Amino acid sequence: MAPLRLPVSLGYLRQYLSLTNNGCLHRTVASYSRVHAKHPITYQPSSAQTRRFCLQSRSLQKEELELTSVRYNVQRGNFARISNEDVAMFEKLLPGRVIADPEELVGYNTDWLRMCRGNSRLLLRPKTTEEVSEIMKYCSSRNLAVMPQGGNTGLVGGSVPVFDEIIISTSLMNKIISVDEISGTLVCQAGCVLEALSTHLSDVGLMMPLDLGAKGSCQIGGNVSTNAGGLRLMRYGSLHGSVLGLEVVQADGTILDCLSTLRKDNTGYDLKQLFIGSEGTLGIVTAVSILCPRKPQSTNLAILGVSNFQNCLRALKEAKGMLGEILSAFEFMDSACMDLAKSNLNLTNPISDKPFYVLIETAGSNGTHDEEKLNLFLEKVLGEGIVEDGTVATDSTKIQSIWSIRERLAEALLHDGYVYKYDISLPLANFYDLVVDMRERVDDLATRVVGYGHLGDGNLHLNVTSPTYDHELLDKIEPFIYEWTSRYNGSISAEHGLGFKKRDFIHFSKTQKAVELMQQIKDLMDPKGILNPYKMLPDKYGD
Amino acid sequence: MAPLRLPVSLGYLRQYLSLTNNGCLHRTVASYSRVHAKHPITYQPSSAQTRRFCLQSRSLQKEELELTSVRYNVQRGNFARISNEDVAMFEKLLPGRVIADPEELVGYNTDWLRMCRGNSRLLLRPKTTEEVSEIMKYCSSRNLAVMPQGGNTGLVGGSVPVFDEIIISTSLMNKIISVDEISGTLVCQAGCVLEALSTHLSDVGLMMPLDLGAKGSCQIGGNVSTNAGGLRLMRYGSLHGSVLGLEVVQADGTILDCLSTLRKDNTGYDLKQLFIGSEGTLGIVTAVSILCPRKPQSTNLAILGVSNFQNCLRALKEAKGMLGEILSAFEFMDSACMDLAKSNLNLTNPISDKPFYVLIETAGSNGTHDEEKLNLFLEKVLGEGIVEDGTVATDSTKIQSIWSIRERLAEALLHDGYVYKYDISLPLANFYDLVVDMRERVDDLATRVVGYGHLGDGNLHLNVTSPTYDHELLDKIEPFIYEWTSRYNGSISAEHGLGFKKRDFIHFSKTQKAVELMQQIKDLMDPKGILNPYKMLPDKYGD
Repeated sequence: MAPLRLPVSLGYLRQYLSLTNNGCLHRTVASYSRVHAKHPITYQPSSAQTRRFCLQSRSLQKEELELTSVRYNVQRGNFARISNEDVAMFEKLLPGRVIADPEELVGYNTDWLRMCRGNSRLLLRPKTTEEVSEIMKYCSSRNLAVMPQGGNTGLVGGSVPVFDEIIISTSLMNKIISVDEISGTLVCQAGCVLEALSTHLSDVGLMMPLDLGAKGSCQIGGNVSTNAGGLRLMRYGSLHGSVLGLEVVQADGTILDCLSTLRKDNTGYDLKQLFIGSEGTLGIVTAVSILCPRKPQSTNLAILGVSNFQNCLRALKEAKGMLGEILSAFEFMDSACMDLAKSNLNLTNPISDKPFYVLIETAGSNGTHDEEKLNLFLEKVLGEGIVEDGTVATDSTKIQSIWSIRERLAEALLHDGYVYKYDISLPLANFYDLVVDMRERVDDLATRVVGYGHLGDGNLHLNVTSPTYDHELLDKIEPFIYEWTSRYNGSISAEHGLGFKKRDFIHFSKTQKAVELMQQIKDLMDPKGILNPYKMLPDKYGD
Repeated sequence: MAPLRLPVSLGYLRQYLSLTNNGCLHRTVASYSRVHAKHPITYQPSSAQTRRFCLQSRSLQKEELELTSVRYNVQRGNFARISNEDVAMFEKLLPGRVIADPEELVGYNTDWLRMCRGNSRLLLRPKTTEEVSEIMKYCSSRNLAVMPQGGNTGLVGGSVPVFDEIIISTSLMNKIISVDEISGTLVCQAGCVLEALSTHLSDVGLMMPLDLGAKGSCQIGGNVSTNAGGLRLMRYGSLHGSVLGLEVVQADGTILDCLSTLRKDNTGYDLKQLFIGSEGTLGIVTAVSILCPRKPQSTNLAILGVSNFQNCLRALKEAKGMLGEILSAFEFMDSACMDLAKSNLNLTNPISDKPFYVLIETAGSNGTHDEEKLNLFLEKVLGEGIVEDGTVATDSTKIQSIWSIRERLAEALLHDGYVYKYDISLPLANFYDLVVDMRERVDDLATRVVGYGHLGDGNLHLNVTSPTYDHELLDKIEPFIYEWTSRYNGSISAEHGLGFKKRDFIHFSKTQKAVELMQQIKDLMDPKGILNPYKMLPDKYGD
C-alpha cells in the first residue's frame, strides 16, 4: 500500500472528517489532501495514527454520531448554562481565542474514535497559566462546567464533553520553558506535542521517557493527566516516577505551583502525584517538569518463534537477566495474530510459523556491546529450546519492517469487520489464560480471538472480531472479561484510563473503600464538580 | 581498625545505649557484646550504621536527653489520655504484645540520633493488618493519638512520639508474602527489614530498588512512608515509581487495599501515592508491593580527581552518555572532605590531591562490557582534561576501600566536635555555590565547611563543624541556608523528610497554597489528627 499523504495538522483532519461524514477514510483523506492541504506530508500507513483513522473510517459508514448524552442516557449535572455575558467576558479575557461557531466546534466535541460526541458551545484557547486561572475563577463563581482538552487522542471518551461543558484547549500553551542537558530535565507548557518535545530533545542527545502511537497529536499535559503508558514504560517506568513537577490550576482558579525540577524533595505530601492520571478531574495541568533519559546510541530488534506461552515467560526472564539494562521492549503475539497479519495485510512472517512470537528490542550506549549481549542471549534461548526460531534486525529498515507486523495488528483486525477491543493488565502467571478462556467461550460466534501486547509490562490487548456488530457476542464477552480480570486482581484499564466509557466498571479493579476515598478527594478539590464532569468516577450527579 | 562485634538486633542495642547512658560507643558496644550478645555478628565500622552509632555515642556524653516537648516547648494536642481500660482492651486484642514497662519503652521513645525523646507509655506490636485496623478503630473512637514506628532510623524526629502517643510498632509484621521472579515483584508486610528483603531476593537473582546505610534496621513500611532515597535512586528512581501497591490502615481503621502487583493500572486516582512519603500522617502502611530489578552481574568503581566543580558536571554529563544504562552511582566530594578523611581517620587518598573528587559506580549484566565502557569513558575524560587523575577498582575489597572514604565522612566530621548537618537538593547549576557562599559567610567561626553528596541526584550534604556547639555560628547558618536553597528552588530536605525537626521550615520549599492543600488532605483523611501528630505539617493543634 502506497503511503498516504495527510495534512500536517491532524486536528483539522478530525474536524473535516466529522463534518464531511464520508464513508471511507482513504477517499476522505485523498479528497481533503487535494482540496485543502497546503503542506502535505508523507505518512506511513503502518503507524498507530493510521490505524486510528481506519477505525474512524468504519464509524463514518454510519450516519452522524449520536450525542453521548443521548446514546448513554446521561443526566446533565446541575451546572449553569452559558450566557451571552459569559461569552463576552471570555472574549475580553482571551481576545480572538474564543470559538463559538458550532461548525468549528465539531472536531473538539468528537473523540478520535468517534465513539463519543458532546455538545459544547464554547472553546477557549488560553496561552498562559494566569489565563487558565482567570477562566477557572470565573467558571467556579458561575458554576459553569469545563472540559480540559489536549490533543484529544484519548480512547475512552475522556477528552470530549458530554453535554455543554466549556472546552479549555491547551493547544496554544506550547512553549518549552527550559532543558537542562546535564540533569536531563525538561520544563514545558502542557500543550507541547509529544513528538515536538522528542525532536527538540534529540538535538541535545536526550529523549522523552514515553513514546506513544499518538505522539504526533497528543500533548504532554494530556499524557500526564491520563498517566500515559506506551512503548518505553518497561525501561523508563511510569510518569509517577519520571514527572518531577507540575503546575496545576485548581477548580477555583488557584494556581498550584509544584513545578520542581529536583529528583529528590521530601518536604510534605507529593501533591503532583494526585494529578497524574486523574484525567483532568482534579485540576488542569498547565506546565510539566519531566526527567528525560539519554538517547540510545544503538537499537536492535529480534523476532523469535516460541512453542508455548510458558516459554514466552522463560524468554522474558532470560532477557531480563542477560539483556538487563539494555532491554527496552518485550512484546508478544500469538499465532492468530500472525495469521491475521498474513491474511488481512499480506505481510510475511520473517521466521517459520510458531504458536507464539516475541519481539525483543534493545537500546544502549554501545552498539557492539548490545549486539554481543543479544547474541549471547539468543544462543542460550535457542540452545535450551526456549525459543525455536528467530531473526535479528540491526538496520532501521528491517527493524521497522518487523515492528510493522506488531504495530499493524489493530489495523489488520478492522478488516474482519467489527472489533471488540480490551486493554487489560494481568499477573504474568495468568496472562494468556484469558485469551484461551475467551476463545472457548465465544466459540463460533467470533471470527477470531487474538492476544498480543506488552508482555514486559503485563499488558494484554485482547481483541475479538465478527463480521458485524453482534449483541449476542458482546454479551458473551462482557461482563465475563471484567469479572475474569478482577478475579486475578488485574486491571480493566491498563493504560487508557476510565474516561467516560469505563467509569462504571471501576469496581472491577478498585475496592469500594478506594472508590469512596477517590470521591472524597474529588469533593475536596472540586466541590462543585465542574472539572471534566461525567468522567473517571461513577456518576453521582442529577438534576 | 578491627571490625566491631555487634549483637544481631540493633533495636536492643539502641535500647541498651539509651539505658546505660555511657560515654563512648565503642566501650558500650564492647561491654554489651561481652555480657549480653548471644549471636554476635561481624560488623564493619565503615558502614553508615556505625557512623550513626558514633554520632549516638557523642550524645551519650551528655546527661539524659531532654523531652522533645520540653526542649521545643510543644503544646500537647487535645487527645485522650490512656486509661487502664484502654490497656486492658489492647491486652485482649494483642495478648503478650502490649509493652507498658517504662524501661522497655525508652528505646522506642528515643530517636536514633538522640535528638528527640517522647514519653509514650504504651507500645503495641500487631502481627496482622486486621490487628492494626482494630487498634485504629479503637484509638479513633477514643481519640487516642498514635505513632507508627518501623525501624526507628529516621533522622528528623519523625519516628518517635512527642508526648504520650501510643507507639504502633510494625516489627512483628515481617512476613514475605510473595516473590515473582519473572515480573520482579515482591509483596511483603511493612515490618520486613530492608536487608532481609535484599538477602531473600538475592537467592532468586533480584535486588531491592533502594539501598540505605540503615538497611540492617530500617523497615520497608518506613522506607515507603518516608519515601527513602539512598544510593540506588539515580539508577532505579524513586519509590513513587517502583512501589506498585500498598495496603494501608486509615485513621478510622479502614483497610485500604491498593496492594496491586501490576505495572500498569489506570483505573481511578493512584491513591497509594498519597502514602508514599507522608510519614505515617495519613495512614499506616501494612503491606507493600514493589518492583525489583535484576541483581547486576558486575560492579566497578572509579575515583577521579577533578580541578573544578564545572568539570565535575562535565564528567557527569559524559558518564550519563558513555556509561548510560550501567551508571549506578555518581558521588562527589570536595578537597575539604579528603583532608578531613586523612586528618581525622588516617585514610589515604588513592590518587593525587585535587580540589574535587567524583566516585563513579557501574553495575551491569556483563562484566567485560562494563569494564570496556568504563575504560572508554576514562580515556575520554582524561584525554579532554575533564578529569586529571583517577583509579578504578573491580574487586570488592578495593571497591569497599574506596567507598569507605566517601561513606565515613560523617564519622570523620564528628571528630571535629559539633556538626551542623544539612541535606539539600539543588539544581546542578547552583549546586556547589552554596558551599562556597557558606564558607565565606561563617569564615573563622567554623572549623571547616565541607560539601559532598549524590551529585547524580542533585543532593548535597553540606556540613559545618566547630569544636563545640556555637549559637552564634548556628545563627550564621540558619535561616541563611534555607533562604539560599529556597531562592534556587531547591529542597530543604532531599531525602530525610520533615518529621518533627523540619516541619516548620516547609514554607522554604513549598508554597502556601501547597501547604494549605496538604492540610486539607490531612483533615480529610485524619479528621481527629490522631496519626503521628506534631509531624510533617506545621502545628495547628492546641489545648
